[in-house]
Amino acid sequence: MEGFKGMERKLIGVDLGGTTIKFAILTEDGEVQQKWSVETNILDEGSHIVPDIIDSINHHLDLYKMTKEQFIGIGMGTPGTVNRQNGTVVGAFNLNWKETQYVKDAIENGTGMKFAIDNDANVAGLGERWKGAGENGEDVSFVTLGTGIGGGLIAGGQLLHGKAGAAGEVGHVTVEPNGYLCTCGKRGCLEQYASATGVVHVARDMAEEFSGDSELKRQADDGQDITSKLVFDLAKKGDALALRVVDRVCYLLGLALGNVANTLNPESIVIGGGVSAAGEFLLDRVRNYFEEFAFSTVRSSTQLKLARLGNDAGVIGAASLARVFA
Amino acid sequence: MEGFKGMERKLIGVDLGGTTIKFAILTEDGEVQQKWSVETNILDEGSHIVPDIIDSINHHLDLYKMTKEQFIGIGMGTPGTVNRQNGTVVGAFNLNWKETQYVKDAIENGTGMKFAIDNDANVAGLGERWKGAGENGEDVSFVTLGTGIGGGLIAGGQLLHGKAGAAGEVGHVTVEPNGYLCTCGKRGCLEQYASATGVVHVARDMAEEFSGDSELKRQADDGQDITSKLVFDLAKKGDALALRVVDRVCYLLGLALGNVANTLNPESIVIGGGVSAAGEFLLDRVRNYFEEFAFSTVRSSTQLKLARLGNDAGVIGAASLARVFA
Repeated sequence: MEGFKGMERKLIGVDLGGTTIKFAILTEDGEVQQKWSVETNILDEGSHIVPDIIDSINHHLDLYKMTKEQFIGIGMGTPGTVNRQNGTVVGAFNLNWKETQYVKDAIENGTGMKFAIDNDANVAGLGERWKGAGENGEDVSFVTLGTGIGGGLIAGGQLLHGKAGAAGEVGHVTVEPNGYLCTCGKRGCLEQYASATGVVHVARDMAEEFSGDSELKRQADDGQDITSKLVFDLAKKGDALALRVVDRVCYLLGLALGNVANTLNPESIVIGGGVSAAGEFLLDRVRNYFEEFAFSTVRSSTQLKLARLGNDAGVIGAASLARVFA
Repeated sequence: MEGFKGMERKLIGVDLGGTTIKFAILTEDGEVQQKWSVETNILDEGSHIVPDIIDSINHHLDLYKMTKEQFIGIGMGTPGTVNRQNGTVVGAFNLNWKETQYVKDAIENGTGMKFAIDNDANVAGLGERWKGAGENGEDVSFVTLGTGIGGGLIAGGQLLHGKAGAAGEVGHVTVEPNGYLCTCGKRGCLEQYASATGVVHVARDMAEEFSGDSELKRQADDGQDITSKLVFDLAKKGDALALRVVDRVCYLLGLALGNVANTLNPESIVIGGGVSAAGEFLLDRVRNYFEEFAFSTVRSSTQLKLARLGNDAGVIGAASLARVFA
């Protein structure tokens, strides 16, 4: 024990993803002091993942001559379906976790620290709420526009989970009845239009019917690789088709987020993930439609914002889960 | 004091509406022991309402030889915008309350009991959750289909209010972009289609374009008074136009409630209000569309139910507000 340092116990946050596992050590106030990461080894049905997490934490503590007594606990965000009480995860397909994983028991035994776990989008939402654009508000909705769309909803100061842990599944809000078929089995989910893959789908469909002059159309017709970033970059340069694609994406996002706000009236809806790299260009257009679809009290009290923490949202939000042990 | 009775302190619930003020005395467990009501006197800018509430409570206690010490407190549901901390209400137009009303101060001073207040739809939601179809669940969404549409959302065991008290405004979820103009100023709100007045609006519009045989069409063309009840009664008898109207209403309700469930994943969505008197006939049709618009985890974990408490939901939920004083 090192006197004063022993008093200020710290948090460990773990952000488990399909390609990397990110780690951070934070003060109890949420200041990131150290960060590191390792590659995710999904071989052998993902059976190396939890041992790798334990080894990496223990190794890091040894290296910096820290002891487990200096920590309040470990929090982790994970893909898949989480049982928070038991600390188990099932159905995380990008980790090759098909069977139930007893993550909490293994990590508590392997590190000697207390451990809490939640869904990755929820955890990123907690991060943006605590230390990012959410400014530690009581009512903050977070939506991440990545390969898919995830959400984390904080209402009345607490993260919402719902009956089966599916609260915050903003990606599966129906925005276009009879629209694109989603991987979830139903049609017209927001994810099929406003995720990175959704934007490309919209772009390819609109390119087929577009007859004007457009670099985006030329690249699509030419069979080139279209990305969400390309669509937004060309739109910013005034490409006619790209602007129409962006308009359609922002219209459906504005509709979905307007209805989330009509339901929850959060003080802010924070938009993160790869697609949000389009920045104010995206936000302004979404806001225009949001204001059309949100009713007056909500329009004047719920703000749309861009996420601020980038990739750190996950480790910061994960660490915040461990504050319950303080 | 009467010995054992003095130990079991009771709750008073008040449901303030535009035509009547309902009162009830409940046990702390939510059993209604006495009910009474008085007419709402909205004359003189509604200035008689709060004094009438105080007099009615004091008179009732005198009559039954009860004392304020036998009560934990009073809870009340009200129209208008509520400031729960200050116990004030503003903008309750059906009460003629245009200016801020200091309800809590007046009632606490006038009765000597503690007082809590919330919005009427929220309070009805608390009632159905506590003692009705919500079965005291942690995550229960309530929607009331009356002249307008109100909502009360309980998530993680607590009533959601949002930044400006507008959480749960399910009536203003946009279900039809560029649809009917709502009294709130925006277009396509659920309230314009699935409230009692909304059903009539849909019926009149569809009657204009309908050319088949229909009693509903004859009555509409004849300029007769169409009601939501008539539409559902004729639909139950197989009237072709009425069935189409009901189908459209249930489609839009299913869409809105599916998206509420995709966002909150409650264990139940409880449907109350006058339109819900159509019973299973309504519920079955809404459920069909709900299952089309809710994604799989939600579909299998969120149930649609009819409200059970009828007019008592308000006083029961209102009384539950006073439990914080126990």
